[in-house]
Amino acid sequence: MYREETAKAYAKLIIRTGVNLQKGQLVILNAPIENAEFARLVLEEAYRAGARDVLLRYFDDKASRIRYQYASEDALTTVPAWKYTPIEEYAKAGAAYICIESDDPDAFFGIDSEKLGKGMNAEARAKKPFQQIFDKNEIQWTVVAAAGREWAKKVFPEAEEEWAVQKLWDAIYHTTRMDTPDPEKAWAEHSGRLRKYCDFLNDSGITRLHLENSLGTSLDIGLIPGAIWAGGSEKTVKGVEFEANMPTEEVFTAPHREKVDGKVCSTLPLNYQGVLIDGFWFEFQDGQVVDYGAKQGKEALDQIFQDENCRRLGEVALVPYDSLISRSGILFYSTLFDENASCHLALGSGYTSSIPGAERMSREEKEQIGLNEAYSHIDFMFGSADLKATGYTEEGREIPLFENGNWAFGA
Amino acid sequence: MYREETAKAYAKLIIRTGVNLQKGQLVILNAPIENAEFARLVLEEAYRAGARDVLLRYFDDKASRIRYQYASEDALTTVPAWKYTPIEEYAKAGAAYICIESDDPDAFFGIDSEKLGKGMNAEARAKKPFQQIFDKNEIQWTVVAAAGREWAKKVFPEAEEEWAVQKLWDAIYHTTRMDTPDPEKAWAEHSGRLRKYCDFLNDSGITRLHLENSLGTSLDIGLIPGAIWAGGSEKTVKGVEFEANMPTEEVFTAPHREKVDGKVCSTLPLNYQGVLIDGFWFEFQDGQVVDYGAKQGKEALDQIFQDENCRRLGEVALVPYDSLISRSGILFYSTLFDENASCHLALGSGYTSSIPGAERMSREEKEQIGLNEAYSHIDFMFGSADLKATGYTEEGREIPLFENGNWAFGA
Repeated sequence: MYREETAKAYAKLIIRTGVNLQKGQLVILNAPIENAEFARLVLEEAYRAGARDVLLRYFDDKASRIRYQYASEDALTTVPAWKYTPIEEYAKAGAAYICIESDDPDAFFGIDSEKLGKGMNAEARAKKPFQQIFDKNEIQWTVVAAAGREWAKKVFPEAEEEWAVQKLWDAIYHTTRMDTPDPEKAWAEHSGRLRKYCDFLNDSGITRLHLENSLGTSLDIGLIPGAIWAGGSEKTVKGVEFEANMPTEEVFTAPHREKVDGKVCSTLPLNYQGVLIDGFWFEFQDGQVVDYGAKQGKEALDQIFQDENCRRLGEVALVPYDSLISRSGILFYSTLFDENASCHLALGSGYTSSIPGAERMSREEKEQIGLNEAYSHIDFMFGSADLKATGYTEEGREIPLFENGNWAFGA
Repeated sequence: MYREETAKAYAKLIIRTGVNLQKGQLVILNAPIENAEFARLVLEEAYRAGARDVLLRYFDDKASRIRYQYASEDALTTVPAWKYTPIEEYAKAGAAYICIESDDPDAFFGIDSEKLGKGMNAEARAKKPFQQIFDKNEIQWTVVAAAGREWAKKVFPEAEEEWAVQKLWDAIYHTTRMDTPDPEKAWAEHSGRLRKYCDFLNDSGITRLHLENSLGTSLDIGLIPGAIWAGGSEKTVKGVEFEANMPTEEVFTAPHREKVDGKVCSTLPLNYQGVLIDGFWFEFQDGQVVDYGAKQGKEALDQIFQDENCRRLGEVALVPYDSLISRSGILFYSTLFDENASCHLALGSGYTSSIPGAERMSREEKEQIGLNEAYSHIDFMFGSADLKATGYTEEGREIPLFENGNWAFGA
C-alpha cells in the first residue's frame, strides 16, 4: 500500500542502493506524471543525499499515444539531433540516471504498430548517444517501478481500482524487499548470492548451454568466448556499485549472435509497445530466427523482425522458478518484473558489459566477436517448472545448472 | 466548471484564436502536470488543426520548490547553455508557443527570496535566446490559464476545494468569453474594439501621460517618440495574427526609461515568485525608482531592484475599471488576470514590439532611444474607480483619456 512513510523509505532505497548516489553528483530523474507525488519523494531524497542538481523529466504515455495517433510518419521519424541534448550532456557530466516506470501495458493498444515501431526506433536512434553512456556503465543507473492506475487494473482486473493500485504497491514493495526489516541489508545479501552464482558460472569454463522443457523448448546456445555472467549489483567504470534494476533476480550473459539453434517456446506474454504478444515460439538456425508464430500479436513480431538484428539474441538469463517474483504468482505485464520471474532471452542488443573491452568496440568489431547490436533489446520468458539447463565446457564436460526450474546447486 | 465538452471548446479556442496555428507548424506546449488532462485536449486540438508535431513539456512547481529548497545557490545559478536548446531550436524552426498556467500563488512561500531570485534570473538568462524569439513576435505565442487546486483555494478560500476549482474554471471561461454563443467571434469583436482605442491613441500625437487618483498616485510618464499603443491581437513578423494573452483587456505602450516622475500607489497585491507584495508604492525621478515601501513583502521588492533596470518602467497599460475581469470582482492572484482588471505599469523590460525596428536593436541602442531592457517584466496594478488619465501632445494639447477609471470616450 502507498503510505508516505513506506514510499519515503522506498525512495531512499532507490537513491542509496539503486543508483548509490555520490555526494555532489548530478541526477536525471525520469518519471510518469501519474507518479509525481512519488517522484518528488525521490527528488527530495536525491538532494538530501547530496545531489548537486536534479533534472526532472516527466513523461505521459497518454499524451504520447495522442502523438502516435495524429502525427505523420514523417514527423514521428524525424527526430532532431538536439532533442536529447540536455540528458546527453547531463550524463556526460556524470549524472546518475533514475527511471521510474508505471506503464499501462495497453498504452498503445490499437495504434498502427508499424508507425509506432518506426517512431520508437527513430527516438531510440536519437537517444543512442545517451543510451551508450549508461550501456557502458559510465554512470550509475537504475530502473524502478511505481504503481500506476491503468497498470494496476491490468494486473488485478477483478479488483476495484483504488484497491488494485494498493495491491500493486504491495507487490512492488514485496519484490523489492521493502517488507524486510532492513531493505538495504536485504539487497546487499541478495546481490551477494547472485554474485556467487555468477562466480561459479564464470569459473566453470562453460562455452555452450542446452535448455529444454516439456513445453517444446529445446535450444542450444553457444556463448561468446570470454563472455561474463553477471547478476545483482553492477559497477561503473569508476567502480561505483549500483543496482540497474529493482527488482532483479537474474544471472545473465551474452549468447554468440551466430550460435543459436533449435526452438524456444514462450511461457509468459510479452508486452511490446502496448501490444500483447502471447503463445509465441521462435525457431533458430545459426543464431537467426528462421521461423516463428504466435497465438496473439504476431503482427508485433513482424514489426520487431524488420530490424535484421532483432532476429538474433542479445541475452540469455537464468532465473529460478521459485524466485520472489515467480512465487508471488502475479503476472505483472512489465518486463522489469516478469523477466525476473522466469528464465528469459532477449532479441536484439547484447550488453557490452558482458564482454570485457566491448564498450570500446565498433559495431563491426562487436559482430565479429559475436556480440549482437540493435536499436532494441526485447526480453521474453521461457522458464517453466520443469526447465532443465545444462552447461558444456570446451572439452565436453557436462555441468547441470537448472533442474526442475531451479538452480541445481546452492550459493 | 470543467466539463470535457467545454474544455474541448476552450482548447480549440486556444489553438485557433490564441496561437492561430498554421497547417504544418510545430508547437511547443508548456503545461503544469496538474492540468495534464486539459493539456492532452490542447495537444489533440493542435494535431487536429494540422500541427506537424508538438513538443509537450510538463512542469511541476512542487518539484521546483524542492529544488529551490535543497540545491545550492551555485547549482541554481549555473544553468548550462544547452538546457533550453530543444525549445530554442523548435522556436527557430517556427514553432508556435503555448503556455498553460495554473500557478499556486504561494508555490514558493517561505523559500529564501534572494536564492529564489538569483536562481530564477539565471534560468531567465539561459532562456533568453528562446524568449527573444517570441518577444520579437517571430512566432505566434499565447499564455492561457487552467484551474489548479492550490490556486483555486487561494482565490476562493471560503469554498470547499472541489467547488473552488469549479468556480475558478467558471471564472476562466467567463473572462475568456467562453460563455458567449460564439467565442471565436466574441474574440474577433473584442480585439477589434481594443484596436480602435489603439488607433485613436496612435493618431493622437500624445507624447506624455499624467495619471492620478485619490489614493496617492500622481505620475508623469514621457513616452518614447514613435512608440506604438497596442492591444488585442498581435501579428508575427510574417503577418500571422494571434492573441498573446487570454484573457486580455489592456491597451499598452512603452514609457521612456528616463522620463518617469512622481509617485504611484498599488491597488492590487503583486505575486512575485510565490511571495505576495501588498500595499506598495514607488517614487520615481528621471525614470528611476528612488524610494519605495510596502505593507507586506518589501524584501521581494529589494530582490527585484537588485537588477538596476528593474527600477525603471517597461510598460504602461490602460484597462477600464469596468472590464470583464474587473467586474467579476475576483482577485485572481495571477498577473494574467489581475493585470487585465486594472491600469498597470511594469518594472523591467519593455516590449520591442512597442517601437518599430527595436527588435533589431542592441541593448545600448534600445537604451539610447529610451526603451528599457531587463531580465524580468513585472506588472503591478494602480487602477482605481477614480483614476484620471490625461494625454498631452508635443504642443501642449490636453486629451482626456480616462475619467473615473474608464475610457473618457467610446470605441
